[in-house]
Amino acid sequence: MTEDDRDGTVPGYRDTTALDLRSGTPVRDVPAPSPAADAAVGTPVHETTAIERGAVPPPPAAAEPAPPRSVEQHLDEILTAVPQPDPIELAVLDAQGLLCAEEVVSRRALPAFDQAALDGYAARAMDVEGATPAEPARLSVVGETVAGPTGPASIGPGMAQKVAAGAMLPAGADVVVPAVWTDGGMVEVAVHAGPGAGSYVRRAGDDVAPGTTAVQVGTPIGPAQISLLAAVGRDRVQVRPRPRVAVLSAGGELVDISTQPGPGQVVDVNSYALAAAARDAGAEAYRWGILPTEPRRLSEVLESQLLRSDLLLVAGTFASGGDVVQEALAGLGPMHFSQLTMHPGPVQAFGRLGRDSVPVICVPGEPVAALVAFEVFVRPAIRMMLGKRQLFRRTVQAIAAERLVSPLGYRQYLHGQVMRHPDGGYVVEPLGDGSGSSEEAMLARMARANCLIVVDEDVTEVAAGGLVTVMPLLLGG
Amino acid sequence: MTEDDRDGTVPGYRDTTALDLRSGTPVRDVPAPSPAADAAVGTPVHETTAIERGAVPPPPAAAEPAPPRSVEQHLDEILTAVPQPDPIELAVLDAQGLLCAEEVVSRRALPAFDQAALDGYAARAMDVEGATPAEPARLSVVGETVAGPTGPASIGPGMAQKVAAGAMLPAGADVVVPAVWTDGGMVEVAVHAGPGAGSYVRRAGDDVAPGTTAVQVGTPIGPAQISLLAAVGRDRVQVRPRPRVAVLSAGGELVDISTQPGPGQVVDVNSYALAAAARDAGAEAYRWGILPTEPRRLSEVLESQLLRSDLLLVAGTFASGGDVVQEALAGLGPMHFSQLTMHPGPVQAFGRLGRDSVPVICVPGEPVAALVAFEVFVRPAIRMMLGKRQLFRRTVQAIAAERLVSPLGYRQYLHGQVMRHPDGGYVVEPLGDGSGSSEEAMLARMARANCLIVVDEDVTEVAAGGLVTVMPLLLGG
Repeated sequence: MTEDDRDGTVPGYRDTTALDLRSGTPVRDVPAPSPAADAAVGTPVHETTAIERGAVPPPPAAAEPAPPRSVEQHLDEILTAVPQPDPIELAVLDAQGLLCAEEVVSRRALPAFDQAALDGYAARAMDVEGATPAEPARLSVVGETVAGPTGPASIGPGMAQKVAAGAMLPAGADVVVPAVWTDGGMVEVAVHAGPGAGSYVRRAGDDVAPGTTAVQVGTPIGPAQISLLAAVGRDRVQVRPRPRVAVLSAGGELVDISTQPGPGQVVDVNSYALAAAARDAGAEAYRWGILPTEPRRLSEVLESQLLRSDLLLVAGTFASGGDVVQEALAGLGPMHFSQLTMHPGPVQAFGRLGRDSVPVICVPGEPVAALVAFEVFVRPAIRMMLGKRQLFRRTVQAIAAERLVSPLGYRQYLHGQVMRHPDGGYVVEPLGDGSGSSEEAMLARMARANCLIVVDEDVTEVAAGGLVTVMPLLLGG
Repeated sequence: MTEDDRDGTVPGYRDTTALDLRSGTPVRDVPAPSPAADAAVGTPVHETTAIERGAVPPPPAAAEPAPPRSVEQHLDEILTAVPQPDPIELAVLDAQGLLCAEEVVSRRALPAFDQAALDGYAARAMDVEGATPAEPARLSVVGETVAGPTGPASIGPGMAQKVAAGAMLPAGADVVVPAVWTDGGMVEVAVHAGPGAGSYVRRAGDDVAPGTTAVQVGTPIGPAQISLLAAVGRDRVQVRPRPRVAVLSAGGELVDISTQPGPGQVVDVNSYALAAAARDAGAEAYRWGILPTEPRRLSEVLESQLLRSDLLLVAGTFASGGDVVQEALAGLGPMHFSQLTMHPGPVQAFGRLGRDSVPVICVPGEPVAALVAFEVFVRPAIRMMLGKRQLFRRTVQAIAAERLVSPLGYRQYLHGQVMRHPDGGYVVEPLGDGSGSSEEAMLARMARANCLIVVDEDVTEVAAGGLVTVMPLLLGG
């Protein structure tokens, strides 16, 4: 630590209010560190009082992770490094929700043949021209065609063929007279109107001509695309696959969900919640569970998951640096643990490990911080692997229903409830006290949220009634 | 048919323009049925000309289905009759996306024990009160607690315990001094600030107290709820199950996707597209495929699917009434085929068949009409079975980029592309010519759409620049 650091060159130490920026937890109900020690007696004591700059010595060097980095820097590193898995071929129904990875050129015409657009009589337009109810055209009905396989049919002058919607147009016919404009005759039909040639006829290739592209590369495959793929005879299609994401929890305090935790133990929440979040984001998520603590076994698990996965997601509390998991990860490749200027969740990591340089993202161990980190870093990475163009959730500007405070230099994410304002626009209510205090531990509060409130690095306070950025957390959205 | 019918008492026959209301297909490029035959010579000929009321005789009675009914009537019948499957118990990860069907009361406190909120020193508030960098409080460090299982620890006056975030608070301690406010000493620690009692301590039960409800009935289960359920030790949870929807296609013209269609044959598109749509709506969809045409075998298939399903979805062209499928359905219970005043897709049906009165919805056979009917009738029914409160997609008002025409008395659904207007609001462009003509056959056009434009029954024209209702078709939305 240098003198400079103590003077505030470490971002987050400069001009702060009494918010503990290293852990990102704002201080509340804490007396100022002895105003008497402050040279400037009479310094106004704010609602959140000031830590005297330089008065607080830096923490021991051993506990200090890499220099702080911004949310953007960390996100950029991840998105730049995340690979795009090779396309795979899937049955059309399994392709649902994925992006088409090939130019699907139709070898067929759609429709495949000229056909009646509705129930009526196939006829020659010249035979019915000028027909009126008073002076109907009379045609002999030479047969009937329903939809379905059929032998060749044809009509000549003065003839009509009864046809159902979708039935092949007989040779010689160039119009279908809707049944309602006739007397419905079975042997002879009186036609009361003369639609022009081509009326109520669907021509072969009107929808898709052979040799044209039915579905383009990059198109999301939904029911309409499956409809079109089926119609052109494709039962399989090349798509961008769901990335296989293995989710692992690290921490000696963890026990599995089915175990009653003893003193000091907590249930492994993250492997469940992050697997659910990864699946919701479009991944094929595999919940591995709690990592072993024995170093050799730990490395084996990590290596084996690296072989099977497109992305590894590890949740753990890495704040104090250099634990057994960090060592095991470091043994598999370059893994960069960084203190991020975001709250909650300061220490996170990214690396590409193993023979195949599989991306590994470490998120904080506190469940709330883990899901916030998922939203900010992992969901965009999964969407990038899926080939999606829109990596990020849409954000809206909303009126803050309450005052929000945020540490300077840190981007703060608060859980909230956003609702439409009767006059238009949105209002958002933070679910905590608007300070992010104890946010990490509050699962029940998080479960009531429908959005994240994002308070930028350079904002320390949003007044009630002020505008704030809100990220609605729609499932699957 | 009575005189009354011909006078226009059948809804849809009254005051019509030259739109074929029985099939719902607007007439285009069709000459007026002989203006000379019209008593009022000089009647203005509109772009879509008028069929003289009463001049067109009704169609043969045999081909006439039940009296027309509105979209609302049909939807009401379906939603009133659709049952809500009994709750089932699933592993929490399988419960994702479903609605909680029980009041989950926590038997545990969250957190389970008083713990450090961040890395620091657990101490007695009275021992550090008034500490400053100039006059630090000096405490003997009696031990260290990391997160994890631990034996009992305690401190007395003048003592401190080094603690990691999440570690159990030793008995006797009532505050955690953040490490950054100390000299980080391992034997003796100098404390430079005196946070008040309770600071940086998470108390047992702060998040969830034992005996309180963690997740309520009706809550959608997403990653945050899974997190909370895991934390309170629930590895299984009662949920509203995904309804099992069997999807069947009817039509003698149909061949399976892997078969090259012969003359007059078309590929079964609907069982794929509707299964995908049902899955997207939240159902467990089972694509049965093309129904056999042999009556005995057909009934067997229907009966067996009724036994296995919560909802049957049958796509077919039932316009001309009384085919083999309609007879087979009628043999299993009351099935009401109705001509609906909507376009596309006039003839649709609903009934509750078999021993268990399983709901059966018949949608049109034309693939575009089938997916429109799915949106209008089936998706809300599936969402109701899932227990969702919001049955319908949100609609927005958008400016029509082009003129739209629609048959009077019919609700028209047109595929379109909706986009945000730079000045706010939305603009929608119909993908056809704005008339719905040939809409049913246009799969490629449908696949380019991102919304349905809804033109109400009493509207026959929307001018370019006019406002129209738009239903964005977001996948999973």
